[in-house]
Amino acid sequence: MNMLRERGIVTSKAEPIPALDQLPIEDPLPLPDAVRESVRTGGLFTDSETRIRHSGGQAIRDLLLRRSGRFPALPDAVVAPASPDEIGQAIEACNRENVAVIPFGGGTSVVGGVHPSRGEHRAVIALDLVALREFEIDRESSTARLGAGLRGAEAEALLARDGLTLGHFPQSFEYATIGGFAATRSSGQASTGYGRFDRLVTSLELISPVGTIRTPKTPHSAAGPSIKELILGSEGSLGVIPWVEVSVRHQPESRAWEAWVAPDFKSGCDLVRKWQQDGSSPVVVRVSDLEETAVSLALSLPGGLAGKAVERYLGLRGVDAGSLMILGFEGTRAEIRDSRHAVGRDLGKAGAARLGKGAGESWASGRFKGPYLREALLDIGLVVETVETAASWSEYQRSHSEIKEGIERALSERGMSAVVMCHLSHAYRDGASLYYTVIADSPRSDPIASWEEVKSASLETITGLGLTVSHHHATGRDHAPFLSRETGEAGLTALRALKLALDPRGIMNPGCLVLP
Amino acid sequence: MNMLRERGIVTSKAEPIPALDQLPIEDPLPLPDAVRESVRTGGLFTDSETRIRHSGGQAIRDLLLRRSGRFPALPDAVVAPASPDEIGQAIEACNRENVAVIPFGGGTSVVGGVHPSRGEHRAVIALDLVALREFEIDRESSTARLGAGLRGAEAEALLARDGLTLGHFPQSFEYATIGGFAATRSSGQASTGYGRFDRLVTSLELISPVGTIRTPKTPHSAAGPSIKELILGSEGSLGVIPWVEVSVRHQPESRAWEAWVAPDFKSGCDLVRKWQQDGSSPVVVRVSDLEETAVSLALSLPGGLAGKAVERYLGLRGVDAGSLMILGFEGTRAEIRDSRHAVGRDLGKAGAARLGKGAGESWASGRFKGPYLREALLDIGLVVETVETAASWSEYQRSHSEIKEGIERALSERGMSAVVMCHLSHAYRDGASLYYTVIADSPRSDPIASWEEVKSASLETITGLGLTVSHHHATGRDHAPFLSRETGEAGLTALRALKLALDPRGIMNPGCLVLP
Repeated sequence: MNMLRERGIVTSKAEPIPALDQLPIEDPLPLPDAVRESVRTGGLFTDSETRIRHSGGQAIRDLLLRRSGRFPALPDAVVAPASPDEIGQAIEACNRENVAVIPFGGGTSVVGGVHPSRGEHRAVIALDLVALREFEIDRESSTARLGAGLRGAEAEALLARDGLTLGHFPQSFEYATIGGFAATRSSGQASTGYGRFDRLVTSLELISPVGTIRTPKTPHSAAGPSIKELILGSEGSLGVIPWVEVSVRHQPESRAWEAWVAPDFKSGCDLVRKWQQDGSSPVVVRVSDLEETAVSLALSLPGGLAGKAVERYLGLRGVDAGSLMILGFEGTRAEIRDSRHAVGRDLGKAGAARLGKGAGESWASGRFKGPYLREALLDIGLVVETVETAASWSEYQRSHSEIKEGIERALSERGMSAVVMCHLSHAYRDGASLYYTVIADSPRSDPIASWEEVKSASLETITGLGLTVSHHHATGRDHAPFLSRETGEAGLTALRALKLALDPRGIMNPGCLVLP
Repeated sequence: MNMLRERGIVTSKAEPIPALDQLPIEDPLPLPDAVRESVRTGGLFTDSETRIRHSGGQAIRDLLLRRSGRFPALPDAVVAPASPDEIGQAIEACNRENVAVIPFGGGTSVVGGVHPSRGEHRAVIALDLVALREFEIDRESSTARLGAGLRGAEAEALLARDGLTLGHFPQSFEYATIGGFAATRSSGQASTGYGRFDRLVTSLELISPVGTIRTPKTPHSAAGPSIKELILGSEGSLGVIPWVEVSVRHQPESRAWEAWVAPDFKSGCDLVRKWQQDGSSPVVVRVSDLEETAVSLALSLPGGLAGKAVERYLGLRGVDAGSLMILGFEGTRAEIRDSRHAVGRDLGKAGAARLGKGAGESWASGRFKGPYLREALLDIGLVVETVETAASWSEYQRSHSEIKEGIERALSERGMSAVVMCHLSHAYRDGASLYYTVIADSPRSDPIASWEEVKSASLETITGLGLTVSHHHATGRDHAPFLSRETGEAGLTALRALKLALDPRGIMNPGCLVLP
């Protein structure tokens, strides 16, 4: 904690969290009979606990609200259809009766993707999709059809029985669902090697208020704009994705992890660029900037490194600061050996110091634990929030600095002391992601409003640079007001037309993605 | 020609082609002043020859019509803007004055993508985009910004100066343009290795009647449905694509070609599937079915093989029929050697016979000549047409037979004798393309109508199997009536909404892609 104290970040004891039965919960509005009757096999829940569990996602605002016992909105019911047919019936009934529908998978959105906004509608339901557990392998085509409700870890476990893997490991992997991956264009820690989720999808279905679209089981099509790509990323605002068919692979024979420290962020990123462009990249690449490296080494974060020992080791090697790199390799033992050798040669030439396998494996074993840390930090009065985008290599370093400065400026204007750190975690031939984590002390008054202002300022900087409002967190309600800065007016016109065509009464996830 | 005669295909002497000055050309309708004045720097042409050159593409119907001297429609003018700004001005003027706009690149559409349909509009212009020759390399991001008017061969030549390649080599490569590649989701002979054109595009612009959309220069985005993928494949029906930014690569150190004959089509395809799924595929793979192999060996087609010698050679190796495979390798000499060795071992195990480098190189040297052959065959009264789609591996062989039978049935019902042959030329982890070539004698009366009926019957078979109306020829006017069989009513509703939003008066390429 020394490091945080040095920066003026003050920890404190959080307010006690109120018990469920002490909370002032509003009674749900009654649902029309047609909606109640649309799910005969599935379930319909109106108890407070289930409603609270479907009241939002995992953004810092959601966490702060839940801790304070305040719920700006709860769904009037949680409806859990048992099959795609029941989804169709539920959506049809809701459309007829003017009831808003919030599709709900793992509930891990960090951009307000699952908030139950009733708006002008008669009532609002959360449509919980976890009962959709279809699973069917097409060995010859190396694809699998996965129900929207399967969580990432569940899908991997089912595939592993046949020696297969999807290779999709976002930090939310344990909770987030297949439907959510498709609806948000998710990407995972191994997406540099396997491809982002949108690239893994070979076909899928959308159940919209005006009918169902099923894209053909074909490896590719030149028949007009891609309808598959219209559905991917639609964030529940056009309809519900009941299943997707995805490309799967054989489990690799072996996996290995390494950690290195490059002299600085740019030299680490330059290596990643080289590997992407000459086709020699490890399947996982992650480069932390100096700030994130310092925090990783100084704090005993889950998945972090044993700080003191590493600092001493680096000191002996003449490295006093640097950029932490985590590399993940897959394949046969021989392939991994060759790849580690080639990549190691490049790293050595660039002046990087090897921390070795142990440090890499330590990161790998804690790689899904990050989100849990946020609750622990909230307990001591610190907040953690993330902002992310992506830039081409030629604009990468400049974007890195300008966004960081933009966030720091917004924080200091609000009197918040903070560490702003960044890493590259998804790389492409033409560029890479930029992922910022901010750890700050809680602003004195109205922390939620302050955070919203900081996030807005960050997005203004990002879109001002001509970059995307999200590389992989999606748009949700939080980024929706900034979407037109990315798409332009004509682009937004196109998205609005699409929304109006498939969801003419605006019942699907109102307020998310496309604002009217 | 023996082979064709054996199948009852009768050659004859074609009708003489009328001279240009003997043709009955209708006078163009006058253009509104605003449209004439919108292209101050570019050109505006109303002479008969230029209008005829912009009257259609390269489908068999276009060839037959042009030979007969009949032109169902000519553009009232050919307008060639000098810059994206002038495109914007021209489209704005046409939108205001209700003039239809047919974007025109290389004019190589084989699906009626550039027919000047005036419809209910006041006049129709062909918007020739060849003056858009922007060229700018971003070395760090390994991308290039290419003007829509650059032809495939021109773009390659410009990139080659810097040791780079786009790796996009469709058969129409010499004429077709970058804008056309993007507008039709083109794929080329090396797309198995480099990826289809849509996968090469990193960002692009669309100038629509309601405004311009420019997608961000970012390697990836999770901000809603992909607007880039809405513009790709829009076939001029939403607006004009003035430039695209594409991923480029270093020229390979070396290239090599091989030809093999596999025992049958399935065993050849099974090898391609294996190579795709284990990541060992050559950059070019092409497998001809038995019929196409027999024709390739028997005819001296440009790009074909010296038939008799090959037949003798195969006879000596105990192969009397088989499936011709063309393989293209790229990389360092060592990589190519290793890849040829690995692939050769698989081929040997599968009982394939090697025809060697000479035969492969002979195919490679003639690989852009196919289209020229059609004119020669028309001269002797034979017509050649193509139909293509794609299927997943698990449905590949069944689809291959059923589509072939569907085409043969349609031909024989119309009393046409024909050879129907097929090849695989683009492969993916989950499936591959199916490309049919039909050589037939000319039907006695109204050959154009007969061919349209045959094509309709083929597309009914294809869409009846749940496959796409096109893997890489696009939709155009010819496939447009079948699109809803692929998208379903809700999918078509989405496309129509998109069209109406960006082109509310329906001036952009009317009749193409999305029917009102």
